[in-house]
Amino acid sequence: MITPVGEYRLKRRVQFHETDGAAIVHFSRYFTYLEEAEHALWRSAGLSIAPPGSEIGWPRVHAALDYHAPLRFEDEFEVLIRIVAIETRKIRYTCRLTRGETKIATGALTIVCVSHEHGQALRAISIPPQVLERLCVAPEPER
Amino acid sequence: MITPVGEYRLKRRVQFHETDGAAIVHFSRYFTYLEEAEHALWRSAGLSIAPPGSEIGWPRVHAALDYHAPLRFEDEFEVLIRIVAIETRKIRYTCRLTRGETKIATGALTIVCVSHEHGQALRAISIPPQVLERLCVAPEPER
Amino acid sequence: MITPVGEYRLKRRVQFHETDGAAIVHFSRYFTYLEEAEHALWRSAGLSIAPPGSEIGWPRVHAALDYHAPLRFEDEFEVLIRIVAIETRKIRYTCRLTRGETKIATGALTIVCVSHEHGQALRAISIPPQVLERLCVAPEPER
Amino acid sequence: MITPVGEYRLKRRVQFHETDGAAIVHFSRYFTYLEEAEHALWRSAGLSIAPPGSEIGWPRVHAALDYHAPLRFEDEFEVLIRIVAIETRKIRYTCRLTRGETKIATGALTIVCVSHEHGQALRAISIPPQVLERLCVAPEPER
Repeated sequence: MITPVGEYRLKRRVQFHETDGAAIVHFSRYFTYLEEAEHALWRSAGLSIAPPGSEIGWPRVHAALDYHAPLRFEDEFEVLIRIVAIETRKIRYTCRLTRGETKIATGALTIVCVSHEHGQALRAISIPPQVLERLCVAPEPER
Repeated sequence: MITPVGEYRLKRRVQFHETDGAAIVHFSRYFTYLEEAEHALWRSAGLSIAPPGSEIGWPRVHAALDYHAPLRFEDEFEVLIRIVAIETRKIRYTCRLTRGETKIATGALTIVCVSHEHGQALRAISIPPQVLERLCVAPEPER
Repeated sequence: MITPVGEYRLKRRVQFHETDGAAIVHFSRYFTYLEEAEHALWRSAGLSIAPPGSEIGWPRVHAALDYHAPLRFEDEFEVLIRIVAIETRKIRYTCRLTRGETKIATGALTIVCVSHEHGQALRAISIPPQVLERLCVAPEPER
Repeated sequence: MITPVGEYRLKRRVQFHETDGAAIVHFSRYFTYLEEAEHALWRSAGLSIAPPGSEIGWPRVHAALDYHAPLRFEDEFEVLIRIVAIETRKIRYTCRLTRGETKIATGALTIVCVSHEHGQALRAISIPPQVLERLCVAPEPER
């Protein structure tokens, strides 16, 4: 029996190459943190978001972050990602980054299911049932 | 006499290292394109956003993008960045990426002026007059 | 008539997201500069190193750099890349980065021609004639 | 009593944003893997390579890799980094990346100890004793 997954907490440490000339994590790198948490959520549900040879892809159609406090080299932090909506062709997430009790960033990510046969334009399609059965909207509101 | 600058068009080509395993530009890289355009806007106004030894910094407090079509290796594209508001401590931009007539992405970026003396917490401060006199809200609405 | 190309000079400016917490360009980013110069060399020869749908690829089998002086935000620099050997399956480059008269870094890059049919292991193959006719060993020694 | 450290094994999974348009990890990213392993070695020795406010830095003066097999999305791999020489001002490492029994890449990294007072040129200095007492040449040859 499959228990669908709706949220994931990724623990991570800031790497030096993620910091910029202001000695804080570059704002664009937070989006890679979100994605790392998202892909870990999928793995925890028994899925890969990009299995070898797959003709289905999941490009991002929306990504947004509000930055509340900086992260610095070697900081340990947590990314909480939560599924807030599953639509016919889209999945919506919210996310929250924290370092201990300090709120670092909050944001959202929306992905769309596409067919990407080689050399063809991307075309939105319905989320396949083998994905739908393993993911769910996160059971509780974000505190 | 100084003519303040309110928008900038950056022309750019997709580099291979900016593409990901789906053979399209990784969604996080678009935020570096925005920032490259922003810094080019500042340079065109006679400013550097991070001059050597400066104790003022400009961290991002909000960044968001909607993705409409993918970019691929060697695509030539344009980033139009426009200042839409200058507040006491913040500057708000909108941006639009296009490849020829194709709309690629649209988004927004907000930065805040901070004092970042070494080893101190970042503290929001008023935008200095030598910056204010060189930047302005873009004169015309985005088409 | 085709004039084969053996070297290329790329002019570039350091972007903020390429600097690290020491306020200098991160050492790993120099390898992306090399590759940008390499791909520009190929374009100047009328080639793309990764045309859409191609089943030939050019993975790197060797990359090395010696770093002589740092690059900082907004520095303008030049990457000179030169083909020093064309073998049956491999192309060897050397490269030199300079900022004005200052030597920044020197290094080497070797790429191998592979067949990469979808889902198959990479397999080294002979460089195709339509590439061979457009590239050549750089005519003069690096000064 | 301090037990000096001479090698470290970092276990890591390939993230999607580290892959490129050929669906393999971009060659420049391997250098960030090396550095992540190096910094983990330092932490395991009770050191930070870039503590807040430090006026000592460790820029790289040499970095090289030979690539033997590709890494793909979600591959689990190991980076073994070993100190092979400690000189007055430099530390030399070798490294080996493996995925299970498969050799992925082998290489070397040399760092130099510098003084980097704000706004000054980098100047090579002797490695401080509090670093020397915690690091050592790896006791056994790489198998």
